[in-house]
Amino acid sequence: MKLDCRQPLGPRFLAAVQSSVTRFLDTQRDLLALTGDRLDPVWDQAVHFTEGGKRIRPAFCYWAYVAAAGADAEPTRAVMDIAASLDLLHVSALIHDDLIDLSDTRRGGPSAHRFFEDLHRDSQWGGDSEHFGRSAALLIGDLLLAWSVSMVEQSSMSAEKLKRARPYLDAMRVEVLAGQYLDLIHQAKPVSRPDLLREAGLVMGFKTAKYTVARPVQIGAALGLASDDVQQGLSLFGTHVGYAFQMRDDLLGLFGDPQVTGKPSGDDVREGKKTVVIGYAMREASPADAERLTQMLGDPSLTQTDIDEVRRILVESGAVECTEKAIVNEASSGMKYLHQLDLDPQGTYALATLVHAAVERTA
Amino acid sequence: MKLDCRQPLGPRFLAAVQSSVTRFLDTQRDLLALTGDRLDPVWDQAVHFTEGGKRIRPAFCYWAYVAAAGADAEPTRAVMDIAASLDLLHVSALIHDDLIDLSDTRRGGPSAHRFFEDLHRDSQWGGDSEHFGRSAALLIGDLLLAWSVSMVEQSSMSAEKLKRARPYLDAMRVEVLAGQYLDLIHQAKPVSRPDLLREAGLVMGFKTAKYTVARPVQIGAALGLASDDVQQGLSLFGTHVGYAFQMRDDLLGLFGDPQVTGKPSGDDVREGKKTVVIGYAMREASPADAERLTQMLGDPSLTQTDIDEVRRILVESGAVECTEKAIVNEASSGMKYLHQLDLDPQGTYALATLVHAAVERTA
Repeated sequence: MKLDCRQPLGPRFLAAVQSSVTRFLDTQRDLLALTGDRLDPVWDQAVHFTEGGKRIRPAFCYWAYVAAAGADAEPTRAVMDIAASLDLLHVSALIHDDLIDLSDTRRGGPSAHRFFEDLHRDSQWGGDSEHFGRSAALLIGDLLLAWSVSMVEQSSMSAEKLKRARPYLDAMRVEVLAGQYLDLIHQAKPVSRPDLLREAGLVMGFKTAKYTVARPVQIGAALGLASDDVQQGLSLFGTHVGYAFQMRDDLLGLFGDPQVTGKPSGDDVREGKKTVVIGYAMREASPADAERLTQMLGDPSLTQTDIDEVRRILVESGAVECTEKAIVNEASSGMKYLHQLDLDPQGTYALATLVHAAVERTA
Repeated sequence: MKLDCRQPLGPRFLAAVQSSVTRFLDTQRDLLALTGDRLDPVWDQAVHFTEGGKRIRPAFCYWAYVAAAGADAEPTRAVMDIAASLDLLHVSALIHDDLIDLSDTRRGGPSAHRFFEDLHRDSQWGGDSEHFGRSAALLIGDLLLAWSVSMVEQSSMSAEKLKRARPYLDAMRVEVLAGQYLDLIHQAKPVSRPDLLREAGLVMGFKTAKYTVARPVQIGAALGLASDDVQQGLSLFGTHVGYAFQMRDDLLGLFGDPQVTGKPSGDDVREGKKTVVIGYAMREASPADAERLTQMLGDPSLTQTDIDEVRRILVESGAVECTEKAIVNEASSGMKYLHQLDLDPQGTYALATLVHAAVERTA
């Protein structure tokens, strides 16, 4: 299953990830079907949320394998299965994240808890529809977390290679949860304006940098039997690129096209997310604008006009420009570390292409 | 670390489980400490909830290993680590279960979401304390699920033995979630009175029978390299004993001493749990009593006098007697399957002792 390194996220790659996911889910169908059709909504939602998506984590994992093992070592189906399992973990995190943020939408449709809330209401079942929705989404997120583990273990990867990858897989699962908790207290705790940037950076390190790039890359490289030196270099590469990825995400949440991102724009502000771009604005904006921003942050009733006002402050203060510069700096530092490593040129090329895709995306 | 088969849940066994859990948690401390003291409350709660508990799943796993491998094959630390990891999974399930049931208490103290709700309120952080509490408990449950996986993988168990146990470990994680979802719809969906017993049995099969007994026993036996025939016999043993365990749990929830169980009595009725004993009552009670029971089930405002009325109906209808009989029948069937297997006598003795402990417990 050799793929084109010039299209590391191309249609053939996406189809291969989907095929791995579908084949794994099929192995789980019988167990759920033991209960008749009672678990069909769970199954349908699992299938729905694991279809599509950006597949960015599987791609970093897969191409790091190629970079470490060499383009001649054709990646096996087992490599793709493990890469694809990272997306099951990610869907689990998204479903639980939507519960924490009380997000109504995900990928242009209802979020999982909204789907189950509607199912409960439409079926005229007893009890509180909203609570049922949240409970079911909690469980389906757990299920996807458990499945992401099973998918790794059921792959035909050799015990030796898997042993190398396990510490990174373990760390990835723990770090994303630690990051989400840090995010939770970061949003809840009062933070002084000067401290905001540092705290936002800490959350970003755990919640995104390691989770989205560094760990997936290290998992792939471990399967390709990379040396400790290579792993250290890739960790630096991944962390820097991960910061760039998260800052792009934050900008897209504010300035992105909802038709393309699948999420209403400005929701981060209504939820009070203290992101890096907000941190820059608090540092750079006029006292009046900083005060205005502080008041608006976390107010769920903000109108589109208010969000436009936030955007104006972010642009006029230079916060957007600072963030764009920081994105380029981080991406560039990451690439530097990547190219210092003596890895397979095709794999390296694919990883560099992925960085551009991750940093310059519109969704 | 040979333990006494006549005390399969004795102080030495409990201490060995605790020691495994503590040693594992210590390996995770450094990662969390990377964030300073920000994650201390998460750590403290994880330690708190993994201390104590009945350790019933580790015990079934450990003694099934002895039964399969023979008493001469001294169980290694790795066997105990894997057995103990089942309790991390269980604590994860309890924390999420308390979110679903909105339970205020667990083991005589506040449930995880109540603890974090209080932390938020006492710290005067921003936003909604209740939502913060639920979000933090959601994440700590996820963390414990991830840790239960890591604890298995970090054990020094041989790859060959672990490979045998993995399908059962995978199934256990999925089945408990499937069981919880079944429970959720079982409580929410209107069920005709005659169907209630069958549906309660189905939920019990997934949520408890497999999860609490059958899978732990199969995991231990797989590590002891049990044959397929033995595994099949142990599955039947575990399923029957698991039913008995759950029915005892249901009776304790209604008639148990809150000082001993650590849970207020009657909460299952207020939450509308359609358990087997309720199913028997719906079938056996007078039409007037069945109607009265239907009205009270799921009413959160029930007083202690109302709960006493429920108890009267359950006793007078003969439902309690039916359930006690069913407990004995199931436990007895389970034991029969156990003793048909040609297993080590000390391991078998320990498993039989565990059945008595599980079925005749008061907490």
